[in-house]
Amino acid sequence: MASKKKAGMVTLTDIEQALSRIGDAVFYSPCHRAEILSELIGCEVFLKLENLQMTGSFKDRGSLNKILQLSDQQKRAGVITASAGNHAQGVAHAARVSGIQATVVMPETAPLAKIRGTREFGANIILHGKGYDEAQKKARELQARDGYTFIHAFDDPDIIAGQGTIGLELLEQIPDMDTVVVPVGGGGLISGIAIAIRGQRPEVELVGAEAERMPAMKRSVKAGRILPQRVANTLADGIAVARVGEQTLPIVRSQISTIVTVTEEEIANAVMVLLEREKTLAEGAGAVGFAALYGGHLGEIKNRKVVVVISGGNIDMTTLAKILERGLELDGRIARLRVVVPDRPGSIAELATLVAGHQANILQISQNRAVSEVELEETEVELVLETRGREQVAEIKASIEHRGFVVK
Amino acid sequence: MASKKKAGMVTLTDIEQALSRIGDAVFYSPCHRAEILSELIGCEVFLKLENLQMTGSFKDRGSLNKILQLSDQQKRAGVITASAGNHAQGVAHAARVSGIQATVVMPETAPLAKIRGTREFGANIILHGKGYDEAQKKARELQARDGYTFIHAFDDPDIIAGQGTIGLELLEQIPDMDTVVVPVGGGGLISGIAIAIRGQRPEVELVGAEAERMPAMKRSVKAGRILPQRVANTLADGIAVARVGEQTLPIVRSQISTIVTVTEEEIANAVMVLLEREKTLAEGAGAVGFAALYGGHLGEIKNRKVVVVISGGNIDMTTLAKILERGLELDGRIARLRVVVPDRPGSIAELATLVAGHQANILQISQNRAVSEVELEETEVELVLETRGREQVAEIKASIEHRGFVVK
Repeated sequence: MASKKKAGMVTLTDIEQALSRIGDAVFYSPCHRAEILSELIGCEVFLKLENLQMTGSFKDRGSLNKILQLSDQQKRAGVITASAGNHAQGVAHAARVSGIQATVVMPETAPLAKIRGTREFGANIILHGKGYDEAQKKARELQARDGYTFIHAFDDPDIIAGQGTIGLELLEQIPDMDTVVVPVGGGGLISGIAIAIRGQRPEVELVGAEAERMPAMKRSVKAGRILPQRVANTLADGIAVARVGEQTLPIVRSQISTIVTVTEEEIANAVMVLLEREKTLAEGAGAVGFAALYGGHLGEIKNRKVVVVISGGNIDMTTLAKILERGLELDGRIARLRVVVPDRPGSIAELATLVAGHQANILQISQNRAVSEVELEETEVELVLETRGREQVAEIKASIEHRGFVVK
Repeated sequence: MASKKKAGMVTLTDIEQALSRIGDAVFYSPCHRAEILSELIGCEVFLKLENLQMTGSFKDRGSLNKILQLSDQQKRAGVITASAGNHAQGVAHAARVSGIQATVVMPETAPLAKIRGTREFGANIILHGKGYDEAQKKARELQARDGYTFIHAFDDPDIIAGQGTIGLELLEQIPDMDTVVVPVGGGGLISGIAIAIRGQRPEVELVGAEAERMPAMKRSVKAGRILPQRVANTLADGIAVARVGEQTLPIVRSQISTIVTVTEEEIANAVMVLLEREKTLAEGAGAVGFAALYGGHLGEIKNRKVVVVISGGNIDMTTLAKILERGLELDGRIARLRVVVPDRPGSIAELATLVAGHQANILQISQNRAVSEVELEETEVELVLETRGREQVAEIKASIEHRGFVVK
């Protein structure tokens, strides 16, 4: 059976077979030229939109390739996995398409939207434990007890071959691509894409992108062995893995010359730019490749054809709202000012009038008498303004100061 | 010249010619089947994504069809228009593609993002006046003085024929569609689509969608003449027109049997659902067609193939952030609670502990001693919480009340 094969043995043929196996049950996602971004960045930018995949991420591909190769007996017994994210939905969807039962163990803290998404694809959900590790332990217990097949998120040759089908699509969509940038978590996606593309166009430059806060693959590649990664809070939670794969690491070491890391600021900005300019929603992990390009981490790319894999779009709307607010503040489209004014009638009216004179909209205003650093006869007003850019914010500050108030 | 033709005379042939004229300078936008939405809504939903068009809306099509038919002399003189929105960018882009100069008069209050967008496409921008009317007056003055050709946003047969190319693409993409839902502003888009589709598939049901706050076309169709519409504030600002077209009204009257209206709540919800479920960004006006479908305004659609034109995606990130916040609150994923607690040390700690017990995250907390309805020995605390749904919000409220605090 294919699953007993070693990943070192995943070949272009395996990926071609995976593509014909998964067929129409997977969405042949578009890879458009991004007009405005190409102009802004100065290279030809193509976005492979796996955020439009059936479950909102590329995970459908590997899971389906794996499940379709199970024996009849394994299919009857069903599959199990542990995940709080895209892999959960990928397995649930693949199982449903194949007509078998999937059980997904999710940590109790999993976001409601992910639980709902996974349940909508028909999986049996078990909420267990405080984090991924406890959920995985439970899944392994149930596997042993009930004879399920465990579906790993990345460290499996059938999973790697499934994800590699993206590479075959790219060879067809952008045959003359120069560079492909791929988000890296456990390494399944970039391994599959590398094998697919190297098999036909060995000279294409392949770049991996990770979050600076959790560079598990970069460190492991450098060390030549799997280094455990301390779990940190990152917007790219979809690629936040504590251990890269035993089967993926050798592939990444031999095939990928460059792994770049991006900051949280760059990830947030990438999500906002993709949304505002390309009208497409990427999750943090899905946007790290674009963050690397947009943040200038790719070296000389002028006039090159650069494909960026946008690997997923399952971002919580709460998180998105926070990203937008931070992005707007950086861009000078929301301004937070603390102003010290005399504590007497009319002060706030005067301040509000000054702001209105600049056509800025007051979103929020609050006054705080209890702040200790302010003199007794003064009071501090906090303003949140909707503004038109950093220049306008500077102008507003200048006119408040010109009036004699102190902006802190 | 084509522009002297009456719109009543726009034919399928004009639209076919428009399509071959504008060719590759316009993006053949995708029209995918929306899997999850189809399941949720109970019909086959297809989204025609004109928000992915070059300038983020369908406006490129009409402008380009118009400009490409100008005489050499007109081309040398350049074109002018007045707009604070998508039409501005459409004209700018079409002029650039055709190698001619465009001047766009925008109201001084135009959002910075739209000004920037229009400027990026190479147009000469003049900021003038407080609203659209003053900007248009200025544009007409400059037209008379400098010999520009004025490009109307909808009331022109070449513009109508250009927008109609969407209809031809739909006939090719979803040949067996049953219903097409189209946002209606001045009426150019729906007129063009109607002529294109009726020419080949007269039985397809065509539905127009407007914002309830500005139903200019619905009222004018009913009256049988153009009724001026009082301008109101709506999320669908892109279709907020004070007067529908003299040339479009007769087409809409004869071709479109149903125009439905949607509320602001429905528009906001539609924008959020498209983003969360389909990973695609629509502006308010672009989402009214989907709002009509999702809000249940289309009558019997079970198992029908329903195409929804998502006409644009140029929404301000500030507006989007507000929509998300409102949507999250409606969905119980953000909760705002005002709680009256005794004004003594430990009260807030106790409240925060209660909330933490429910695994809800405190986004914002503020205490207000100056509120008059509260007794002297009490104080009001305002909490903004990140929650997991309406059920959890109800549970949190119940446990706060069970502790003896009053939730207002």
